Amino acid sequence: MVEEAARRIAGRVRRTPVMTTEIDGLRVHLKLESLQVTGSFKPRGAFNRVLSEASIPVAGVLAASGGNHGAALAYVAASLDIPCEIFVADVTPEIKRRNIARYGARVTVGGPQYPDALEASLRRAAETGAMEIHAYDHRATVAGQGTMALELDEQVPDIGTVFMAAGGGGFIAGAAGWWEGRVDLVSVEPVGAPTVHAARRAGHPVEVSIDSMAADSLGSRVVGEAPFDAIGRGVTESLLVSDDEIRSAQRHLWDEFRLVVEPGGAAALAGLRSGSFTPTRDGEVVVVVCGSNCDPQTVTG
Amino acid sequence: MVEEAARRIAGRVRRTPVMTTEIDGLRVHLKLESLQVTGSFKPRGAFNRVLSEASIPVAGVLAASGGNHGAALAYVAASLDIPCEIFVADVTPEIKRRNIARYGARVTVGGPQYPDALEASLRRAAETGAMEIHAYDHRATVAGQGTMALELDEQVPDIGTVFMAAGGGGFIAGAAGWWEGRVDLVSVEPVGAPTVHAARRAGHPVEVSIDSMAADSLGSRVVGEAPFDAIGRGVTESLLVSDDEIRSAQRHLWDEFRLVVEPGGAAALAGLRSGSFTPTRDGEVVVVVCGSNCDPQTVTG
Repeated sequence: MVEEAARRIAGRVRRTPVMTTEIDGLRVHLKLESLQVTGSFKPRGAFNRVLSEASIPVAGVLAASGGNHGAALAYVAASLDIPCEIFVADVTPEIKRRNIARYGARVTVGGPQYPDALEASLRRAAETGAMEIHAYDHRATVAGQGTMALELDEQVPDIGTVFMAAGGGGFIAGAAGWWEGRVDLVSVEPVGAPTVHAARRAGHPVEVSIDSMAADSLGSRVVGEAPFDAIGRGVTESLLVSDDEIRSAQRHLWDEFRLVVEPGGAAALAGLRSGSFTPTRDGEVVVVVCGSNCDPQTVTG
Repeated sequence: MVEEAARRIAGRVRRTPVMTTEIDGLRVHLKLESLQVTGSFKPRGAFNRVLSEASIPVAGVLAASGGNHGAALAYVAASLDIPCEIFVADVTPEIKRRNIARYGARVTVGGPQYPDALEASLRRAAETGAMEIHAYDHRATVAGQGTMALELDEQVPDIGTVFMAAGGGGFIAGAAGWWEGRVDLVSVEPVGAPTVHAARRAGHPVEVSIDSMAADSLGSRVVGEAPFDAIGRGVTESLLVSDDEIRSAQRHLWDEFRLVVEPGGAAALAGLRSGSFTPTRDGEVVVVVCGSNCDPQTVTG
C-alpha cells in the first residue's frame, strides 16, 4: 500500500530534508516534514486519497480540518482543478485559514472544535453531493502518510527509534503500517489530547476530551478506525507531554535551528526531551517535525 | 586548504540539509546553511581560523561583526573556553545581539556601521592584546567557509550553477577556491552594497558606500584582500538585486517553506528570481540560503 502510494504521489510532494544534530547530548535526526508543501505532512495522504478515487463528483471535494489537512486538500484540489470547500473550527488559527484560502478553496467555520467542523462538513456533503475527504480515517490517506516513513528509511539507514506526534492517528498509523515493529515507534500526544494513548490502553478507539495548545492539529476526539489497526501493530510506546513541554520544544527548535514549528509539530521533540522514554533499541534516533503553520510570534515572543 | 579545514572543524559544525524543490518552474536545490549552528555559515570559518592558530592570548579573542560572525566567534570561544568580546554596529538587530550574548561573549556597540565597529575592535585589541579574528579577511577563515562547498559536492552530484550572497567576500571566496570554475558561481549582492561587483569590475578591491536592508550581514565596504584572489578565479558572474527583490525572496521562503531567512540570507534566491542571469551550464542549480538571524515579524508582517 505504501509503496503504491509513493509511486502515485511521486513528484507531487516534496522529499523533505533530514538534519542530523545533537539534542540534550543525544545524536538525533530531525525529519523536517514541516518543510513539506503547505507546511505539514498532510498532502501525502490527501494526494493519495484523491488520486485513488475512481471518480470525483462535479461538486468537488470537501473536508473538516483543524487547518493542515484543509490546506493540503485545497492544494491537491487546486493541482487537479477540482472545486474544494474546507470546514475549519474556531480553534483554527488565522495563519491556517489564510493558508487554505491561498490555494483557492472556500473556507467555512463549522463550529468551536474540529468535531463540530466535521459534522458541518458531513451535512454539506449530503446536500451538495461533494465528496468528503476525511482528515485521517481512510486507508488511502493512511497509506499516503506512510510514504514519509518509506522516505525516511532511504534517508537514514539503520533506524532504531522514531518519535512522532499523533492526533487522529493517520500519520503515525501510516508509519506503523510501514515499519510494523521493525523500529521502536513512539507516539507522542498532549496530556490534553490523548487519543492514541487511550485507544492503546482500552484496546479500541475511545473518545477523549480535548484541552491543549496543540488542539488545532492534534485535537481529534478519537482515533480513526482505519488507523487503529496499524497503530496496534506498529506503535511500541505512547507518551504524553504537557503544553509547557511542547512550548519548550518549540522554543528549542527556534533558538537552536531558527525553525518555526507549530505546537503539534514540536510535540514529538517534546516527547524525546521529556525523558519519560529513553531509546534502548540499537540504531539511529529520529524525531519527526511535522508542521510549521503558526504565527512565529507565538514561538519567539 | 578546504579539505584540511573540513577535517579540522568536523563534528563542530552541522552538516546542513539540502532541499530539492521547484522555484518559478526551475528545479533548484536549496542548501539550508541558515540551519547552521548560530543561524549562519560563519562558524565554519571562525572555527577553522581559531583552531589554526598556534596560540591564543590570555586576553582571548575579539571581533567586529554585523552580528553573524560575532555569534559564530562567541560560539567558538565558548566551545574552546576562551574569553570573547564582540563589537557590533548600530545596524545590528537586537536578535543578533542576543544571539552573541547567549554564548557568553561581551557585546560592545562600536559605532553606526560595521566599519566603525571594526575600528573600535582594533583599538581594543591594541589595548588588551586580545587576538582580532576578522570576519572574513583571513585565509583560514576563507578556507573554513569553503567547507560548505565541499559538503555540497557530496550532497548534490553534478552541480552546474550555484547562487551565493556576498558581503566582505569570505563565504563566496571559500566556495570559489573550492570549485575554481568547475561550476558557474554567481555572486549576488544588494544594489546598495556591491563590493564584489565593484571589485570584479575594477580588478581590485574598491570601497563602496552601503545602503541596504541587508547591511547587517552584507554591509562591508570593501572585499577582503584574502578573498579577492579566489573570487577572481572562481566567481563567474555577479548580480545586483534591489531591497524589494530581497524582501520578496524572504517572503517566498516563508510562504512556500516556512523558513525565516534574514535579508542577506535571501539575497541569493533574489538573484535567481530576478531573471537577470539564467543558468545555462549543464548540471544542477543550487541556491545557498545562508542566514536566519532576524525577527520573524520582519519577514511575515
